[in-house]
Amino acid sequence: MSMLVVGSVAFDTLHNSLGTHKRVLGGSATYASLAAALFTEVRLVGVVGRDFPDSAVAMLRAHGVDVEGLEIADGDTFHWEGRYSDDLTSRETLATELNVFADFQPKIPAAARAAKYLMLGNIHPALQLDVLDQVDGPVLSLADTMNFWIDGELETLKKLLARVDTIVINDEEARQLSGKHAITDVADELHGFGPKLLVIKRGEHGASLFAEAGPFVAPAFPIAAVDPTGAGDTFAGALLGYIASQDDISPATVRRAVIYGTAVASFCVEGIATQRLEALTREEVEARVGKIRELVRF
Amino acid sequence: MSMLVVGSVAFDTLHNSLGTHKRVLGGSATYASLAAALFTEVRLVGVVGRDFPDSAVAMLRAHGVDVEGLEIADGDTFHWEGRYSDDLTSRETLATELNVFADFQPKIPAAARAAKYLMLGNIHPALQLDVLDQVDGPVLSLADTMNFWIDGELETLKKLLARVDTIVINDEEARQLSGKHAITDVADELHGFGPKLLVIKRGEHGASLFAEAGPFVAPAFPIAAVDPTGAGDTFAGALLGYIASQDDISPATVRRAVIYGTAVASFCVEGIATQRLEALTREEVEARVGKIRELVRF
Repeated sequence: MSMLVVGSVAFDTLHNSLGTHKRVLGGSATYASLAAALFTEVRLVGVVGRDFPDSAVAMLRAHGVDVEGLEIADGDTFHWEGRYSDDLTSRETLATELNVFADFQPKIPAAARAAKYLMLGNIHPALQLDVLDQVDGPVLSLADTMNFWIDGELETLKKLLARVDTIVINDEEARQLSGKHAITDVADELHGFGPKLLVIKRGEHGASLFAEAGPFVAPAFPIAAVDPTGAGDTFAGALLGYIASQDDISPATVRRAVIYGTAVASFCVEGIATQRLEALTREEVEARVGKIRELVRF
Repeated sequence: MSMLVVGSVAFDTLHNSLGTHKRVLGGSATYASLAAALFTEVRLVGVVGRDFPDSAVAMLRAHGVDVEGLEIADGDTFHWEGRYSDDLTSRETLATELNVFADFQPKIPAAARAAKYLMLGNIHPALQLDVLDQVDGPVLSLADTMNFWIDGELETLKKLLARVDTIVINDEEARQLSGKHAITDVADELHGFGPKLLVIKRGEHGASLFAEAGPFVAPAFPIAAVDPTGAGDTFAGALLGYIASQDDISPATVRRAVIYGTAVASFCVEGIATQRLEALTREEVEARVGKIRELVRF
């Protein structure tokens, strides 16, 4: 089933222990679309500038991403620059040049409005709400968010939470948003805001799903990460892409989707930026899901 | 099969958001013995002072803990006092009165030297080595340790690691001891120090086992903890107690043991000090193991 991804498409300049990686492909919608496209048809809605290379558009197309909704605006593409600590546990933003992304107003193409599965990448919650107003009413909607919006746009974010089915958030941000600490209290509080499905990302510790059918814990796949950029977007994109491919939101499918998200994200961090994701095959993903099954078997 | 636990027996004074809990029962050997006794015969070796109440000794006996090796020395029992942060993520030591524990020299009773399963609770690594010299050669030995010994007794700790089969350590301390960050690198380095089995405690994120047969990840059981005191000792005690009860160190048994450790530790943190552990039944443990199985099922 078709899936719609709305979010940022960007250039990232990444500094890490391996060196500097200038203006590599980035953005939440880029990672999420590449991840979802391993499983299902994906339509991407975002904006880039005149400097965005045809080769990157061609790469997305070659992976099965429909780019009809990728607007090309006058100006430059969003550019983020950051430096990771050697152990990859923290990163410092060196530059954020919003460029054409500053005026991004998502315009959902007619053909994409009926998408049954909707991923709202991590952008301003007012834009995420605006997308919800444009679509027909998906079977499952998923929103990603971050501390920046919890700090600055809490009321808008709460309006969004009242309208989406699934929220994906990291553990620290979930505690900030809920004002609670114990994970069961966090889950109760965030369910109260609206979303039926709560997915808490715990980085190297995996991810937890809190749903009416009961909690589910997915381990992280143990590897030495090279670049964590986009891992969260990849996780969410693969998760919803797998659900879309099954066209089923039963508890068993959602649990497997969290595992598929974990598997694809574990590949993402093995390479710089989208490198590993671009080369990834569904067969490799299935093999890793098998290893994750072995990892928790008792 | 019989299991030997060597460690501290103490009074703890705990300050947390529920109030002050004065001179409650504590110590690594106390928690580990109570946890292991849910599964197997346990012999405890430790030292207490003249102030240690008969009622506490009777409680241990009533739980099936053999206290022949619990020495009663002139002086007072080890007393630790600490204050937990409201979210229980950190604690501050207010007082450490070693008392009779300062001169603790473990004396393993003749009947305990043949124990097939040996737990070396978190005490000075020189004492842990001394215990290894006194026993006949257990089927499986397990040592717990902490940053205090990594900082101050690294060479002695390395001698210990060369002689024990299993090390239980938290993730931060595992990184400190190995000098590595990525968990796979940490595991490789620590295996190089000697132990075949490496168990990394990750607190609210569960625990990971690294063994020749492959890695295993156990989730934490999601609950709102009341008091984390002794959770690590309880985890290790239940883990080895379960292995002793099966008298088997096959990979499948060791994986299940990590789950039993997780289950018993999740009860431990539900009450102040040893309260919940003292009231815990094997049936409750089995029910929680079932819930943990459900938690990771996909």
